[in-house]
Amino acid sequence: MKGPLMPASDTPAPTPDAYGVGARFSLHPMTDRFVEVILGALDTADSTGLDLTTDDVSTHVRGREDRILAYLTEAIAHAGRTGVHTVAHVLLSRGCPGEVACEIADGAAYAPQVPARLPATGVQASAHWALYPLDDSHEADHMAGIYAAIEHAQDLGVFTGSEHYVTRLDGDLADVLGAVAAGWLLVGEKVRHVTTHVTVSLNSPTAQAGAR
Amino acid sequence: MKGPLMPASDTPAPTPDAYGVGARFSLHPMTDRFVEVILGALDTADSTGLDLTTDDVSTHVRGREDRILAYLTEAIAHAGRTGVHTVAHVLLSRGCPGEVACEIADGAAYAPQVPARLPATGVQASAHWALYPLDDSHEADHMAGIYAAIEHAQDLGVFTGSEHYVTRLDGDLADVLGAVAAGWLLVGEKVRHVTTHVTVSLNSPTAQAGAR
Repeated sequence: MKGPLMPASDTPAPTPDAYGVGARFSLHPMTDRFVEVILGALDTADSTGLDLTTDDVSTHVRGREDRILAYLTEAIAHAGRTGVHTVAHVLLSRGCPGEVACEIADGAAYAPQVPARLPATGVQASAHWALYPLDDSHEADHMAGIYAAIEHAQDLGVFTGSEHYVTRLDGDLADVLGAVAAGWLLVGEKVRHVTTHVTVSLNSPTAQAGAR
Repeated sequence: MKGPLMPASDTPAPTPDAYGVGARFSLHPMTDRFVEVILGALDTADSTGLDLTTDDVSTHVRGREDRILAYLTEAIAHAGRTGVHTVAHVLLSRGCPGEVACEIADGAAYAPQVPARLPATGVQASAHWALYPLDDSHEADHMAGIYAAIEHAQDLGVFTGSEHYVTRLDGDLADVLGAVAAGWLLVGEKVRHVTTHVTVSLNSPTAQAGAR
């Protein structure tokens, strides 16, 4: 029986560090008290097993996929529960530890199974999501992973539409972030270097004057 | 003699609409007065020649590359000049009008020449930048475009380092966004579907309590 973190492929599991598994995220509470909200969120969330490094633009989170997902969900939910209109931007990356000039990594693709669904946070989220399989190999079939990603988002009930360049997700924050992480992992079973970006809006006052 | 918007390749120029050229951006002023700052920025910037559609997560901007760059620079600079700590997130996409399941578009790659350098805004920006060539063709050489993108950022004096998954850019907002757009276009000369994401931080109070 496979547990939630057993490999979904037959490749021996590399460590998150060796494989380049991690996230960058930033939190933007639109209030004069933004420092208090940000620090409260970062301090409250359980960072066990993760390495966090913050600079003036974003926070880098390195560690196991299920821990990253749980941490991000907890931190962003905490900011949402203040009631302040807050936007979070999350980048997940795997398979290429480098920067913009990163050579496509050699070696087999690996991804753990999709983590178990997290409990609902009670925080409603609206999101724009982009998923990028970066595959140079000739036998690439990244569409299979992408279709699995969309189907998973539909199963979670958060797929709400297609926009230019992005897919819209709406629902409980845990399910929205869960769908994003799942898509990243489902594509990651076949493609080594996969990134995904999501912009998540919480407590938007109105569609007209909101999180633009 | 080629003007700034003559094609850099021999392919006849498709319209921005036909080629799927556009941007999504969101502006996050961290103040109780965020609505006022956002609306001021969007209303002040010159949107001539562009189609803008705003929802509760982001604004979609469609039109010519040079117009998109000028509009984004003007809108974000306006928010920056309020002195409020503001973060902008920009996604530029070309070559694939679709959503997360977009099939890689057929047909030759096309990009106009990189727009002329815009005048300095006087607004200092710090940014994290990611550039994604999405090329399924067997003769892909996306690294050539990426190296050209980095060299261009270095020429503009805004390349300040490599971070996990992103490249750091610092400098006048016009040059930071100029480097991002140029990188997107330089890769776009050879690769049809290219996206780029940048998180831009303005007026961050400190590196410790700032735009995380």
